[in-house]
This record gives sequence, structure tokens and C-alpha cells, in this order.
Amino acid sequence: MSANLQMMANAIRALSMDAVQAANSGHPGMPMGMADVATVLYTKYLKYDASAPKWPDRDRFVLSAGHGSMLAYSTLYLSGYASPTIENIRNFRQLHSSCAGHPENIELEGVESTTGPLGQGLAMAVGMALAERHLNAVFGDELVDHRTWVIAGDGCLMEGINHEAIGLAGHLGLGRLIVLWDDNRITIDGSTDLSTSEDIKARYVATGWHVESCDGHDFADISRAIEAALADRRPSLIACKTLIGKGAPNKQGTSATHGSPLGADEIAAARAELGWNYPPFEVPAEILDAWRAAGKRGEVAHGKWNNRLSTNTNGVEFTRRMNGELPQSDAMQDYLASLIANPAKVATRKASEMALEALTAAIPELVGGSADLTGSNNTKTKSTGPLTREDYAGRYVYYGIREFGMAAAMNGMALHGGIIPYGGTFLVFSDYCRNAIRLSAIQQQRVVYVMTHDSIGLGEDGPTHQPVEHIVSLRAMPNLTVFRPCDTIETAECWDLALKNSKGPSLLALSRQNLPQLRTDVSQNMSAKGGYRMRAAAASRKVVLIATGSEVELAMKVADALEATGQGADVVSMPSWELFEAQDAAYRAATLPDDALKVSIEAGVTLGWQRYTGNDGLNIGLDSFGASAPAEDLYDYFGFSVEAIVSKIQAKLKA
Amino acid sequence: MSANLQMMANAIRALSMDAVQAANSGHPGMPMGMADVATVLYTKYLKYDASAPKWPDRDRFVLSAGHGSMLAYSTLYLSGYASPTIENIRNFRQLHSSCAGHPENIELEGVESTTGPLGQGLAMAVGMALAERHLNAVFGDELVDHRTWVIAGDGCLMEGINHEAIGLAGHLGLGRLIVLWDDNRITIDGSTDLSTSEDIKARYVATGWHVESCDGHDFADISRAIEAALADRRPSLIACKTLIGKGAPNKQGTSATHGSPLGADEIAAARAELGWNYPPFEVPAEILDAWRAAGKRGEVAHGKWNNRLSTNTNGVEFTRRMNGELPQSDAMQDYLASLIANPAKVATRKASEMALEALTAAIPELVGGSADLTGSNNTKTKSTGPLTREDYAGRYVYYGIREFGMAAAMNGMALHGGIIPYGGTFLVFSDYCRNAIRLSAIQQQRVVYVMTHDSIGLGEDGPTHQPVEHIVSLRAMPNLTVFRPCDTIETAECWDLALKNSKGPSLLALSRQNLPQLRTDVSQNMSAKGGYRMRAAAASRKVVLIATGSEVELAMKVADALEATGQGADVVSMPSWELFEAQDAAYRAATLPDDALKVSIEAGVTLGWQRYTGNDGLNIGLDSFGASAPAEDLYDYFGFSVEAIVSKIQAKLKA
Repeated sequence: MSANLQMMANAIRALSMDAVQAANSGHPGMPMGMADVATVLYTKYLKYDASAPKWPDRDRFVLSAGHGSMLAYSTLYLSGYASPTIENIRNFRQLHSSCAGHPENIELEGVESTTGPLGQGLAMAVGMALAERHLNAVFGDELVDHRTWVIAGDGCLMEGINHEAIGLAGHLGLGRLIVLWDDNRITIDGSTDLSTSEDIKARYVATGWHVESCDGHDFADISRAIEAALADRRPSLIACKTLIGKGAPNKQGTSATHGSPLGADEIAAARAELGWNYPPFEVPAEILDAWRAAGKRGEVAHGKWNNRLSTNTNGVEFTRRMNGELPQSDAMQDYLASLIANPAKVATRKASEMALEALTAAIPELVGGSADLTGSNNTKTKSTGPLTREDYAGRYVYYGIREFGMAAAMNGMALHGGIIPYGGTFLVFSDYCRNAIRLSAIQQQRVVYVMTHDSIGLGEDGPTHQPVEHIVSLRAMPNLTVFRPCDTIETAECWDLALKNSKGPSLLALSRQNLPQLRTDVSQNMSAKGGYRMRAAAASRKVVLIATGSEVELAMKVADALEATGQGADVVSMPSWELFEAQDAAYRAATLPDDALKVSIEAGVTLGWQRYTGNDGLNIGLDSFGASAPAEDLYDYFGFSVEAIVSKIQAKLKA
Repeated sequence: MSANLQMMANAIRALSMDAVQAANSGHPGMPMGMADVATVLYTKYLKYDASAPKWPDRDRFVLSAGHGSMLAYSTLYLSGYASPTIENIRNFRQLHSSCAGHPENIELEGVESTTGPLGQGLAMAVGMALAERHLNAVFGDELVDHRTWVIAGDGCLMEGINHEAIGLAGHLGLGRLIVLWDDNRITIDGSTDLSTSEDIKARYVATGWHVESCDGHDFADISRAIEAALADRRPSLIACKTLIGKGAPNKQGTSATHGSPLGADEIAAARAELGWNYPPFEVPAEILDAWRAAGKRGEVAHGKWNNRLSTNTNGVEFTRRMNGELPQSDAMQDYLASLIANPAKVATRKASEMALEALTAAIPELVGGSADLTGSNNTKTKSTGPLTREDYAGRYVYYGIREFGMAAAMNGMALHGGIIPYGGTFLVFSDYCRNAIRLSAIQQQRVVYVMTHDSIGLGEDGPTHQPVEHIVSLRAMPNLTVFRPCDTIETAECWDLALKNSKGPSLLALSRQNLPQLRTDVSQNMSAKGGYRMRAAAASRKVVLIATGSEVELAMKVADALEATGQGADVVSMPSWELFEAQDAAYRAATLPDDALKVSIEAGVTLGWQRYTGNDGLNIGLDSFGASAPAEDLYDYFGFSVEAIVSKIQAKLKA
């Protein structure tokens, strides 16, 4: 058995070193170092069915050390997934190959998550493990009973997010999460001794984890450690002592194997060392057969699970949720009607809570949370009781002061499926989780960021807490839809759009301060247009005011003042640039006509608004940091007053 | 003594609750909880001279839990700093008061760093403690012999950056760093039990720290713990068991005291509880005198230090460095001349290394580093040997895989003074440290970010590693100067500008791929203009091509192709938007004349470029994520080829 396992592991080593060599780019060290561990995992412990990559009750495997992508591609190919093919692997890191430099969930069904940005794979795995426990609590062992496995490197453990992720996992007692740490003591710069003196195992124990160690090149010892992890109720870290680049006789154990091809000579030497006398990309039938058999290990369990699903009373609901289909519901329409009946002057963060009350009651897969700002982000509703280690059926996660960990966990929950996660913090702290938002976007996941206190309008907390550059900097991110609604109705509309966007994240930028309900008609979701004429000029149109969020109210008052002097002014509310850009040219031109002075009003930097106002328009914004003072004083001080804006417009019209 | 200390501490409590009440906004809980600890620190241990806030050998104190800003304002006022005045405190959180919602170093000399974004204060303190050891190693005990103290809350310890910061401090053995942890078990959402189960003390021990505990309301016990910390060679964490809002009899110990005024009734009850029978903002003479005496504790030591400075052979050099004045040097001019003599086709990351070789040899206060990408960021030079716990005189920090910790530490080093820090990572991972970059900008600190692999030009690593939105999103940040140089000469110029900008951070976006040396004249630092005509049209000008960094080479080739068809094309290289915006209108208009089609070329999102091309111009960019492939293939695939661009320009000219 072990002899065979050894050759099966060497198949990973050979494919990895050959693919990196062919691409003349990549990271052979990690796949070669962790080949033995991965082989034990895939042949003995991981619950999967290579013929059905999306079987909902499969174990999740996350390669947090994503640079070792050839480990993932090798195991997927060897165990018999339909893709990648050996041809894809031959084209590792080439245009249009599904075998990208780092594993991408959108390229390969068998890749559970896109990794590479260090630390986040493990943090997403925490979200997956949490999703499993939640769905298990809701749907029972019959339908949900799997584990989450991670391979992580020293980098994943050194990143700050690791602290947040394992703190959350330890607190929530996610015992079905097992992290296989590639403990090779090598980073890019050299030995880990250069930069760290930490007792990692003691840190994990301090954080509520179970810790094992094993010789990562001894199959029996790897199994022993995994068995011990399986037996423990805590999340487990297994320190797998490995040699980076194992099998490359002259380079193994050094950072030289980390991120560069081994070179033809060393590869030849490795072939000899490994007893691998086969051409590049060829795996002998006997070894491939053994791997393919491993890939079928889960077929029987999968079949039984299918039977259980078909007879389970909640099977249809489970499938709906796992497919990401929203339930039929009139909740949003009813809620909008109630707003027309009883208009509310509230902050949009409060409007978000009101919308969420309706939505969370109607959509059970909504699981909320906040990074310790529940009462400020207004993210908790009556339907969302606390999700705790004692009650995984809860729907509200107290994420703690862990913005990055929260965002990554939400990515993991969305990737797992069956849950639509949303979570809150202050907009300024989008900085703390920005790369996780980016991974929501790259991975095309439905994650909703509830970002409140979205401008100087938050007042006294001052410049450290006042976003000014954040909204445009998030608009710059591909596949993220940024919403900045202006009142209760737009907030509800934007929530509706966010939930219906199943192929990407949404971010709601919400006010701290109260805002009047401006909209009076809910027959159509106007926010879906991205920008729309909220009010048409009465007098002959001279000006088009384009505003977002809290500044739409101000724009309406500016329009009043202009009209009073006989100058007609349209007001365009533009809750989402991305959706406005998606409209056809005729609509955009009609909304922002050429024949008027266009004026943008947004309490943030003006960068970017020129695309809508042209360079001969006017951009009312704030191109410096804010200040600490009551919100009304700040609005006046920074020129966001009717008087100041009208005066600038008049000057421009005369010029 | 203790009775007096108690009333001195209660002065902090009274000022804090009264100021928050007057502002109707703020955080009384922390200052009231930590008043006793702060009183012990300021009256017995902290080395300072209230009459000389900038005495270079003072101890540094960082209020990492910045929301407790009234603690800082109270101690500064009470101990006799010139500011804040009691009038400033009365105007806490009002426009133009130096007592902002969170402490701001640019408002008050006695505030060592701007805090509020949780976790970063402590992480900046690590940089200060590192700066102290480095300068001590260079200048000796006579001139540099002080400590760094931090007050941190649960939030600071839960944030991911805490892991990075304490890992660095533990590894580097920064024993003069003492963290006073406000261990009150309360966060905004409620008890820490809601979100964490960690054994924090064990985690610190695992990370190489010494840990003490004390009763944070027992003066003798606080002193005992501090004495133990002073005696230990490791950095120290002191868990100060406190009651949040101590003194408010009905609200203390609850999250209700955290971030809201106590209210008139509770304040009255607290006055009774504390035996504080004085009107708001009044401190009886006896107590104020005791505080003022504490504020003079350091005068004698300061005087002796002044004497040592005046006789020390390195005193002038020390003062130069602490004043942030660059040394006289011809290094840059000599280096530029060498480039003219021997033009080099290298990546701008390599060009940065070449410039750094010259600069680090000439400017001893440059201390570099990288977040484990030394060989990729090209940040290490012959002059910068490793800075280790065995040799603090080294000038290169192996920051490990800790981008956020690195950036915050650099802020701390800059704030400490005597050092100009620079550090590297991949541009895409600016996401990981973005809020620290923001704090460099808010705090007006000279920190240089060396961000390499600045576009799809990095090739095979793929979309997770390819920045597309980052450059513009960083341009959006106030007071950050973003540079994207196009060749060796611009890279040197940008380095020169970064070092001369003593009032803000700079960020260099640098290529992985080789680029030709385009500039042939170094008589003037053209990059100082932000954008300039690199080449004038030969034929009648039809087009102005505006490009940055690696795309300037492409723009030159496009211009060649256009000129070949008789269409004249200027090429404007624009290494810095911020500096271009700072030029007068005439220069900008002459550089980007109205009479030609303006075309921007940058391998990133097009958002924002309309300000220079107008809406009738052309924006060549990449508004989606990248892909994994060799760089040349990606450039072709995404339309960054001479053929594709010329074709778009021709179509536009015909339209």
C-alpha cells in the first residue's frame, strides 16, 4: 500500500515540476512538499465523488497556499475530475488554460475557492465550516454532514487575517475544520527564522484549537494525526513537518524551490531520486488507476445521499437554497407599499434594517452579522437570532472586531452555498477587508456588504472614521456593485437588486444621519437603472444635478433654489454607477443631456465624476480628509450647503 | 499618596464624562476605566517633559484605543502641556477644536500618533520601539534611551494586525515596548464572550512576549506589574483588569458606557460616587498642582540630555535626522549622470533598486524592508544589512508576510523620527495595508511604499495578483502621492521627489517587466511636473497620448505608427496625477491641448482618466480582472498592442 501511495504522491510531484518547467513559471516547492499529505487526504479521508464536483454534501478542500496550484490541478486530474485535462495541465499558466497561476473557482468546478492572497483561503474555509454547521442544524445529518480541509503554508499563518479566522473558528467550535499546515520553515525570503519566532502551535491552542504534529512524508504518521483530528471536537491544526520541494535532491529544503522552475538538470535528478522514469505529463496506468479508484471512493455515499435527498421532506427547499434560487415572496412589494403608506425620515442604515426585517423574514438563507457594530450598522433583525456554538441554527454572527475575517468568512459561506451572507462595518473600514471584497468579486459570489457611516455625515468621530475616497475606490473594483441609496425606498430597491445579483458582491454605502423619504412611486425599481431623473426641471432646464445617497436631499434643495430664480434644474439620483453604465447610450444621454450644466454632488472625492459632468461641468465634493465636528457643521464647512452650491452654479452659468 | 492619586485619576474621569456630555458624543467608558492606570503611568513611569513635547528622548505613549481620546486630552492638559487648553477640551469634538473625536498627531504636539482605526496604534508603537532600538544602536545610550507605552483595548487585540505587530515585536525582541491592555471584557456589541474565547495571555507568551496581570484600579498593583515589565527583556503585555466606565455607578461594567454620553443623571451619580464635587471642567488647584508637578518630572533628565547632546560628537547628525532634514549629497545627480552614460533596459522595480543603491549609501536614515518579497520588490541594497535583535544597527527589516504590520510599523518609525522608512510588497497587496497607507497620509508622514508587479504585466500569477483598480483607488486617497514611473530616469526622479516630500507618504508603482530607458535628458526633474511632454508631434498634431509607467513605451510606439501615416502625436508621460494637478492651469492646458484627440493608455481601469481626455477622448485600459498568462500574451489579449490602439484611434479620428 505505502509503496503505491509513494508512487501516487510522486505523480503529483512529477506533474508539478514538469508543468512549472513547461510554463517556465510557477511554484514547485509546495506541491512537492505536500504531495504525500495530499495523497493521504485524497485517497483515504476526503469525502468526494470526482464525477460530481458539486455534490452538496462533499467535503470542501481549500488550498489556502494557492501558489501551490499544481497540487490542486494534479489531484483533480489524477482522481478523475472531468477537468482539468492533462492538456490543461500542459498549458499551465497559459492564456485560456483552466490551470491558472493560482486556483480559480470560476475556471474549475473542483476548485472550491480562488486562493493566492495569503491567509484568505483558510479564512474562507472557516466560513465554509460555519455554513456546514448552520445547514446541518437546519437540514439535519441526512443532508449535511461533511468536513472542511485546508492546506496552508507559513504565509497563511503569519498574515493578520489568520488571527481573526482562527479566533472565529475557535470561538464557534468548528470541529469539522482541519488545517494541514505545510510546516517547512521556508518563506520566499529564506528561513522563517528571518522574520518569526512564534510558537504557532501554542498560539492555536490558546485560540481554542486542537493541535497535532506529524512527519509530512510518513504516510502512517499523517493518517495517525488526521485520525486524532477527526476524533477531537475542536478545529484542528496539523503541523505537517515537510521538506519544501521534496524529491529535488539538490534544491529541496530551500527557498530556491518556492517560486521558480527547478530547471532541466534538477528535474532529471528528481526523476532519478523519485524513481519516476516516465516522460513529462505521463502517468503510468497502474498509478493513474489507483488514483481513479480513489476518485470513485465517494460514489456509494453520494448515491445513498441522493436517495436521502429525494425522500427528505426538506429536500426541495435544500436544493433551492443550494442552487442559489431566491424563494417566491411578496415581502419586498409589501414593504415598499408600507413605505408609501407611512413615509419615514430615517438614516439609510436604519432603512436597511427595515428592509432587512422584511427580507430576513422571507428569505431564510440570509445570514447576517457585523464586525462588532451591530447597533451602528443596524444589521440584526428579529428573524436573525445569534448563531453560536450552542445553536448553529441561529442566523446572526457576532464576528467580533474582525472585518477581514468577517468578509472572508462570508466569501466561504457563499462559496459553500445554501446561504446568502451579509455583514456590516463602517465604510471606512472597507480598507481592512478590501482584498476579501475583491475576492468576492473575482469569485463571483453573492455577498452583501453593509457599510454604514458613509461620509463626513458621521460627524464627530473625525477623519479616521470618515470615508472620502472609499466610494470611488470601490466603484473602481471590477464586478462589485456599489450602491449609495438616498432614502428608504432606494435602500429597499438596492437590497432587492443586491439579492438578485447572484454573480457578484454588492456593497451598500449607508448614511448615519436621517434623510427624508424622497420617492413617492414604487411601481418600478428605479435604482435598477443605476441613475434616473428623480425630478424634472420646471423652468427651462439649465442645470442637471447628479447626486447620490445623503446628497440627493441637498440636490433637491439646490434645485428649489435655482428654480426660484427661474433656472430650471433636473435632479438625477444615481445610486449605482455600475448599473447606470449598463444602460443603453440613449437612456444615459437622455438622463444626462448635453444641453445643460452638469453638477455632481457627493460628499467624497470628486475623482471620477468628470465622466458624468464632463470637464466643463461642476464637481461638488471633498478632496481632502474630513474633520471632527457635528455633521451639520461639517457639511457647511466643506461647502455642502444650498447657498455655497448655488453660488458656484451661478458663477459657472455666468462664465 | 494613593488618596491623592485617586483624586488625580478622578480628574481624568470627570473631564472625560463632562466633555463627552457637552459634545453629546464620544466614549467615556475607556478613559474612566483606564484613568487609574494612566495616572500611575504619567505620574511615575512615563519619561516626558510637558514643556517640551518634542524632546527626542522622551518616552512615546500611544493611545491605541483612540476612541478613548479624552484620556489623552485629560492627561496632556492636566500634566501641563501647552495644549490642549481647557477651552479646547470644552470644545471636544467641535469644529476647529484640537480635541478631535480621535487623537490626531497633526492637532496636538503631545499626541504621538493618530489613532482610532483599531489595532494600528499598537502596531505603530512597534515601529516606534524599533526606531528607538535602531537609533540607540547608531547613536548610543547618551542620546537614545527611552521606552514606548501603549494603552490598547480588546478591539486592538482582536484585529488581525495585532498578530502581525506582536509577532514582529516578539521576533525582534523589543523589550522597551510595554502594552497596557484595558482588559474590561466589553466590546460595542456587549461582552467579549459574544465573539471570542481566546486565551490572550497565552497567545502573547506564544509570540515571545512577557505577560503580567494587575488590578487596574489598584495603584500599587499597577506599579508592581509595570516594574515587572520593566525588569523583563521581552516586550510586555500587562492585562489591566478594569471596569469600563468605572465611577458611573449604574452603567459601569456595561457597553452602555462605551460610546455614548452617560447622561446628566448618571454623571451626577458618578460625581457622588467619585467624591468629585466640582463643576464641569474645573479641577481643584491641589489636584491640578499635583498633576503639573508630574508634568515636570522629566525636566531635569531633559536638561541633562540637552547637555549630552551639545557635547556628543554625533549630536549635529542626530539633530539633523530627528528634524527630518536630508543630508547634502550629490548621489542622485551622480546616479542620473551614470544612467545617461549607460542607459539600462530594466524593470522599474530594478530601477528602484539601482536608485536605492545610490540613495541608501548617501542617506543613512533610510531603513528598508519587504513583506517577504525582497527579491521581487528589489528593496535590499548593499548599504542595508539586516536589522535583527542581535544587530539593531542594521537597516533592512525582514517584515515577514505581514503587509499591514509592516506599513503600520513604518508609520511608527516615521512618527518617532530619525528614520525614513520604505517597504515593499506587490501592488495588489496594498489592499492588505490600505488603512495604514491612509494613516500615513492623515498623519502627514514620510513613508515610501515600494509596490511592484503593478499590472497585468506581472503575467502568469493571474488575476489575484494583478492590480487593475489599485492605482486609481490610491490616487483617490488625499495626501498620498502615487508615482508610476516609466523608466530608470523617471524612477530615480520619483524616488527623489518621494524623499523630499516630508509631509506625506509616497507610493511607487513599479513594473515587473523590463522597460527601455526613454529619457535622454536629466537637466531637470521632469517627474516633478507630474506629467510632461516626452515627445512632441512631428507631423501636424492630431493626437495626444497620455501614458504612465510601462505603457509609456507602448505610447511611443503608437506615436511612431501614427506619425508614419502622417498623423502627428504628442506623448505625455504622467508619472503622478497629484503633481500634475499641482501645476498651474496654463502648464496643464499646454501639456494637454484642446485641439487634439486625447488618449490615455494605462494597464488598469479607465475610471478617472476622463478628467484628462474629456468624454470625447479615448481611454485605453482594462475594466475587468486580468488573467493568467505570459505578460506579452496578456497585453495582446487585452488590447494593449500598437495595432489595436492605432486602430481605435483611427476610428475615433474618422468619427
